[in-house]
Amino acid sequence: MGTIEDLDAYVAGNSARFVDELKDFIRIPSISAEAARHDDVVHAAEYLKAAAEQAGFTKAELLPTGANPAVYAERIVDPSLPTVLVYGHYDVQPADPKQWASPPFQPEIRDGNIYGRGAVDDKGQVWMHLKAVEAYLRTGHELPVNLKLIVEGNEESNDAPFADLVEREKTRLAADAIVISDTDMFSKDVPSLTISLRGVAQVQATVHGPDTELHSGSFGGAVGNPVAILDSIIASLHDADGRVTVPGFYDDVLPTSPAVTDSIAKLPFDAATFAREAGNVPALGGEKGFSVLEQLWTRPTLEVVGQGGGYQGEGFQNTIPRDATVKIVARLVPGQDPQKTADQIAKAIVDAAPPTVRIDIDSAKGGGRAVVTSTDSPAIRAASSAMHDVFGKPVLFTGEGGSIPVVETFGRVLNLSAALVGVGLSTDGYHGPNEKFGIDRFTNGIRVIGRLWNQIGAELAGPAPQPVRVAAAPPVRDIGM
Amino acid sequence: MGTIEDLDAYVAGNSARFVDELKDFIRIPSISAEAARHDDVVHAAEYLKAAAEQAGFTKAELLPTGANPAVYAERIVDPSLPTVLVYGHYDVQPADPKQWASPPFQPEIRDGNIYGRGAVDDKGQVWMHLKAVEAYLRTGHELPVNLKLIVEGNEESNDAPFADLVEREKTRLAADAIVISDTDMFSKDVPSLTISLRGVAQVQATVHGPDTELHSGSFGGAVGNPVAILDSIIASLHDADGRVTVPGFYDDVLPTSPAVTDSIAKLPFDAATFAREAGNVPALGGEKGFSVLEQLWTRPTLEVVGQGGGYQGEGFQNTIPRDATVKIVARLVPGQDPQKTADQIAKAIVDAAPPTVRIDIDSAKGGGRAVVTSTDSPAIRAASSAMHDVFGKPVLFTGEGGSIPVVETFGRVLNLSAALVGVGLSTDGYHGPNEKFGIDRFTNGIRVIGRLWNQIGAELAGPAPQPVRVAAAPPVRDIGM
Repeated sequence: MGTIEDLDAYVAGNSARFVDELKDFIRIPSISAEAARHDDVVHAAEYLKAAAEQAGFTKAELLPTGANPAVYAERIVDPSLPTVLVYGHYDVQPADPKQWASPPFQPEIRDGNIYGRGAVDDKGQVWMHLKAVEAYLRTGHELPVNLKLIVEGNEESNDAPFADLVEREKTRLAADAIVISDTDMFSKDVPSLTISLRGVAQVQATVHGPDTELHSGSFGGAVGNPVAILDSIIASLHDADGRVTVPGFYDDVLPTSPAVTDSIAKLPFDAATFAREAGNVPALGGEKGFSVLEQLWTRPTLEVVGQGGGYQGEGFQNTIPRDATVKIVARLVPGQDPQKTADQIAKAIVDAAPPTVRIDIDSAKGGGRAVVTSTDSPAIRAASSAMHDVFGKPVLFTGEGGSIPVVETFGRVLNLSAALVGVGLSTDGYHGPNEKFGIDRFTNGIRVIGRLWNQIGAELAGPAPQPVRVAAAPPVRDIGM
Repeated sequence: MGTIEDLDAYVAGNSARFVDELKDFIRIPSISAEAARHDDVVHAAEYLKAAAEQAGFTKAELLPTGANPAVYAERIVDPSLPTVLVYGHYDVQPADPKQWASPPFQPEIRDGNIYGRGAVDDKGQVWMHLKAVEAYLRTGHELPVNLKLIVEGNEESNDAPFADLVEREKTRLAADAIVISDTDMFSKDVPSLTISLRGVAQVQATVHGPDTELHSGSFGGAVGNPVAILDSIIASLHDADGRVTVPGFYDDVLPTSPAVTDSIAKLPFDAATFAREAGNVPALGGEKGFSVLEQLWTRPTLEVVGQGGGYQGEGFQNTIPRDATVKIVARLVPGQDPQKTADQIAKAIVDAAPPTVRIDIDSAKGGGRAVVTSTDSPAIRAASSAMHDVFGKPVLFTGEGGSIPVVETFGRVLNLSAALVGVGLSTDGYHGPNEKFGIDRFTNGIRVIGRLWNQIGAELAGPAPQPVRVAAAPPVRDIGM
């Protein structure tokens, strides 16, 4: 049999064990956002390091960062072979057990899916890479490329520590291609590769009124109400067509990449399915004049992710609140600068405030720029071929409305356009309750990666690699995709 | 010496003890809104019953209600004398000790004030009535009127139980006049009587979007955001001049009572002082075209007392919220019906919602109508004379932007217009931290009440009393003033 047949047979014969191993990995509650989980986070890093060694990586070690350690491992087969850097993260989002059908850190198999926090984001997709290496080596084949594995522990909480590590370790991480498995396919039946990611900017604003709560009867009618004033300010940030009214917001937006326009035209998008997957919303919304995929991938947004002021318990407390706070997350498209956008939003809020209140702005530093990857890098060509082979259908390109700031970091520091080779689904519950990963996609993902190393070896051994340069941008701060 | 001189001398000679007794009363944390405090509430009722007996009341008993008991006591001197009903409440608002300079239930004297929860609202003002009776009897004088005392235990949490009791006990509570000491003077130097109270209506609305939180990147831009939509809805409820835009909101508003217009013209109002007392707001606001006192006493309002949706903790969580909730308290003026107003507001909210969301309305039943009391009842004439005598200045009339629903209940059931004879100040911290009561006002209040019984006896013994009828209204639900 050839290499690929051997790999497929090995995966088929060992998939039950792979699932058990992944369940053990999921059982470690490595929530990077919760300080109390620090020991679990470190435990997950050590567990992963040992597993990488067992799979056949060498020189496995924990690289310290300002926060949680990153796991590094490599298998340098031959310095003359091309080298691929694989990135993932072993930390996970918080999980509220009350919203889960089964406990988030006690993984359970139901209907062919592994349910558990981190199943798809990103422990399961990291595990695919380990198992692909194992499959090569246990079937008597050496890897056709040199591999470097870097798996960080702060993706869900704070990008800065890992971005610093990339800068510091750029020699160690140098490669001919980068592969990241932390994204989705367009759907179960449509294999795809993500080629665009939106950027992100964050602004928090607080409206301060009276310095103590005031009786809503004794003072109501003569004093500005901070909550109602914030409502009016936020309402003023969009027009009736859903367009953002913040001055300058769209000034730097570049024309949409033809590759993205082309992919939107080709994808079999169904709005009813999307509305169902979007939490059964009664109707879709957004900026008028754009299709849903255009709204998601090519248009910047200004979303309120949280807002509050005054009494929010049971019943009523009849006081005029002292203050009200809003948290805004803007998603950016190519051309927009995160800090400039945050400053524009902050200014619009301040300018809209009446003299009855005072505004405090907390505009998060950094943020992240939008990225459009190459559609014709060796890694993308190899990944397309590998996915086509495993899923039996030609691969389409997709965008992603969310942000993976590390893609921009790698582009800037390592001068490489990453290939986003993911087999998640948007319905897999990323960040939400009942996160899952289909076992079929998990095992097919291992098969895709096995083929990918084979193909990429061929691609990179050909004409000299042509790294794609991503526009320079300020350091990014993690927003957990 | 005459009766009044005897009373004044007794108050002067015993004021230190009166303060100590009041401090003991304040020490009982009778918070009616907190179920865990039920034993304390009952303890306060029993303490008050015993104190009333000690002061000289007879037939003291606890009257059961659907909630906390009311304390009833009387002193029927002679059935041919006029009878006055005195109302107050022994329950208090919750108190967050973190915001207090001294613990709320460990009363402390500072700068001539008693600090403690309930000091002025309403334990201190109830205590004045007990001590006035004591002063009469201990100085060898019988009361010049028959007195009935009713002090309830749910004023700060739920009006319905006491309103039911008034209906049930209307024979026992029948009187020729009602005096309530639960309000303020215009200022320390301006003795006044409250003649108007605004009514109240409450509406809670929740905007439901996706049935699960959605990633703000992956879905943001194509899905309605419940928080931002609620902001737009609430912003649409006022126009640029601060006028409420809810259809029909002003339709039933009656012309302002000439007595209220007249009192506003006479009162020495200072906007800068008011802005300072209103939590040092940077500037005053409200409906354009009206003075502050007009805004507070003669104009209905629509205030947001609480609103929230999405993530409100530290930092950012990048999800589109599932829902957002707002709590609205409207203050009403004569002519407006609470339920009708609540329904109008609810309809305006529903009508303003886009098809991307679903609205749930929880419109509180009942509410309370605005009340304008007589300015020429025997009790008001007697109270004016008594306050003038004690404070050395002519008494002015004031309005109150808040609501005391029981005033409307008494008017409807007992067919009497209550005299609101209070010696609090708007700066005494009603419902807020560091509630206080000036000892001088506490003792002067006792002297006012002593004179009041004397005067009211004369007034009511004169021409037949002319009860003032208050317009009928639906049962009210307490909003704690």
